[in-house]
Amino acid sequence: MRLLSKSNIENIAIGASLLGAGGGGDPYVGKMMALSAVEQYGPVKLLSVDEVKDEDIYMPAASMGAPLVMTEKFPKGDEFTRAFNRLGNYLGKEIKGTFPMEAGGVNSMIPILVAAQSGLPLIDCDGMGRAFPELQMTTFHLGGVSAAPMVVTDEKGNLSIIETVSDKWAELLARDQVVEMGASASVSLYPSTGRQIKDNGIQGIISKCERIGEIVKQHDRGKDWQLQQIHALTESQHLFDGKIIDISRETRDGFNYGQMTVQGLNDYVDQKMIIEFQNENLIAKRDGKVIASVPDLICLADMDNLLPSTSESIKYGKRIAVLGLPADDKWRTAKGIETVGPKYFGYDFDYQSIEELTKEG
Amino acid sequence: MRLLSKSNIENIAIGASLLGAGGGGDPYVGKMMALSAVEQYGPVKLLSVDEVKDEDIYMPAASMGAPLVMTEKFPKGDEFTRAFNRLGNYLGKEIKGTFPMEAGGVNSMIPILVAAQSGLPLIDCDGMGRAFPELQMTTFHLGGVSAAPMVVTDEKGNLSIIETVSDKWAELLARDQVVEMGASASVSLYPSTGRQIKDNGIQGIISKCERIGEIVKQHDRGKDWQLQQIHALTESQHLFDGKIIDISRETRDGFNYGQMTVQGLNDYVDQKMIIEFQNENLIAKRDGKVIASVPDLICLADMDNLLPSTSESIKYGKRIAVLGLPADDKWRTAKGIETVGPKYFGYDFDYQSIEELTKEG
Repeated sequence: MRLLSKSNIENIAIGASLLGAGGGGDPYVGKMMALSAVEQYGPVKLLSVDEVKDEDIYMPAASMGAPLVMTEKFPKGDEFTRAFNRLGNYLGKEIKGTFPMEAGGVNSMIPILVAAQSGLPLIDCDGMGRAFPELQMTTFHLGGVSAAPMVVTDEKGNLSIIETVSDKWAELLARDQVVEMGASASVSLYPSTGRQIKDNGIQGIISKCERIGEIVKQHDRGKDWQLQQIHALTESQHLFDGKIIDISRETRDGFNYGQMTVQGLNDYVDQKMIIEFQNENLIAKRDGKVIASVPDLICLADMDNLLPSTSESIKYGKRIAVLGLPADDKWRTAKGIETVGPKYFGYDFDYQSIEELTKEG
Repeated sequence: MRLLSKSNIENIAIGASLLGAGGGGDPYVGKMMALSAVEQYGPVKLLSVDEVKDEDIYMPAASMGAPLVMTEKFPKGDEFTRAFNRLGNYLGKEIKGTFPMEAGGVNSMIPILVAAQSGLPLIDCDGMGRAFPELQMTTFHLGGVSAAPMVVTDEKGNLSIIETVSDKWAELLARDQVVEMGASASVSLYPSTGRQIKDNGIQGIISKCERIGEIVKQHDRGKDWQLQQIHALTESQHLFDGKIIDISRETRDGFNYGQMTVQGLNDYVDQKMIIEFQNENLIAKRDGKVIASVPDLICLADMDNLLPSTSESIKYGKRIAVLGLPADDKWRTAKGIETVGPKYFGYDFDYQSIEELTKEG
């Protein structure tokens, strides 16, 4: 157990935004919400997964919808804890803590806000080790934990409690409510026992995000040192440097869809990269060849200061570095690939790991 | 209090289908569901409104969606009572009976099925005195009773409990779930005290439907006698006789939309009527002039045997009689007209009563 300081939270926001893989929401919005909650309600305790009790119940709270919309429709600040408390009441159980469902600039921060507002601890794990666009795309789903019962609520006070026969139905029914509520809403879902967290969570992810943030902040040690540290920590590799020369996107069915074209710089002059996304980056093609695809992470950072970039913040002319990270092993199983592999997202090729795709020759 | 016999139920189904004003669902489907439930679980008690206790809680159960779809996706039979019981559990209250939310071939029958399956009485009232397409279109809404908390469920076992800041939000959020569940689903809503039923219900509507059914069945007394009896009972007037020469319809956003053209017969030779509907008939134009509009009822019956016709059962060549009935006085208030008048449905004219519109000269 340790208490999270404001600078810990700032670092977590940076690292989580990188692992958001282009999605996960605006890290500035997320950080401000978490910091102001901690300011008002006091510091938050972070527990490691081995500190939770097997039989206790814990639940995430999150923002669901199109991240682009959330930036325009700023949350009021109480809707996440309201969703969390309503789900707890519905279950009729005492909830002992919270954790993020995904890594991302907003969705790693909301549980900090909920923890501060509720006086509950935060658990050092999440359910993706990255961000994904749909709610059945979690390692808890892979392990048989159900997304529902879940709560969806908006800033006006409308609320749906959803129970479903499958996590895909939870995604469909919750997504409809999110779209009707204005393409962005607050959810609480995947109520889990400590045992289920130990079996299915991506452990230590919050501390890992924090460490990434610490590295990104040490600009004075030089970009080479920073990248080397990040690569060592995340087993990532450098996929590209370049300038955004085209970006198209649309908000549809409660998601941000689009693609960006990056013109190479530095070691990648005369090369082009195309990255396609649905909230999160799905595939990256370098000179027409796929070199990374879901569930592996395609992460964007400012080429100069390595601050993470989300797909909705990308603008023409921005210079970015593209990093490729292997997904957690839980995703590299048959059920993992079926749930979040390229075919699920409509591509007609089989998943190959980023290590295979980037092998020389 | 009286017990409903099978022939009582058959008569209610006929009368309710007429008052369904083109909507309210297939009376054959509805009747079969109610009769088989009574067969299995025993007869249902009908209470008059003055027999309910002010402080007790009662709730309707209904089918929500496009009636055309329900005919294709036949209910399993347990989903209505499941929705009803889940709402009762959620409220944490003992529910003392049920009643229809609208008059219609299906939605007047479902509460009979729920009453039989639950061993609860049916109350002789509804919340419209006719059928309407959206769930805020009830006299309970006009009186300030809330549609939510409400439950939406499908035959697979998916379920949403919805709480909202307004009845219009209940309509929006529930409609999304209905569409996702396949354009037809089971709901329970408008939990009401006995006092609220006395203040807001359309009282005696089930007995009135039954009386209409009795009249329609007495074919041997002649159509003139039958029509005279119906006109006296419902204060209705004859608007048209004719043959369907065109019908267009589509299922969109969880509703059946369309219009029919009727070529005059009998006293109406050389005249044409156009009827536009959204589940229920909204307006009727005779030779281009509007002669009836919501909230007044535009009801269709077979020209020969006076059995009611729903808009989804209408086919080219069918010969129909069109009756116009004044809406209940609760609908003819400023709030009533705002909620279900022609402007709400996108027409650019003010409501005039059927009595005014059909005045000579």
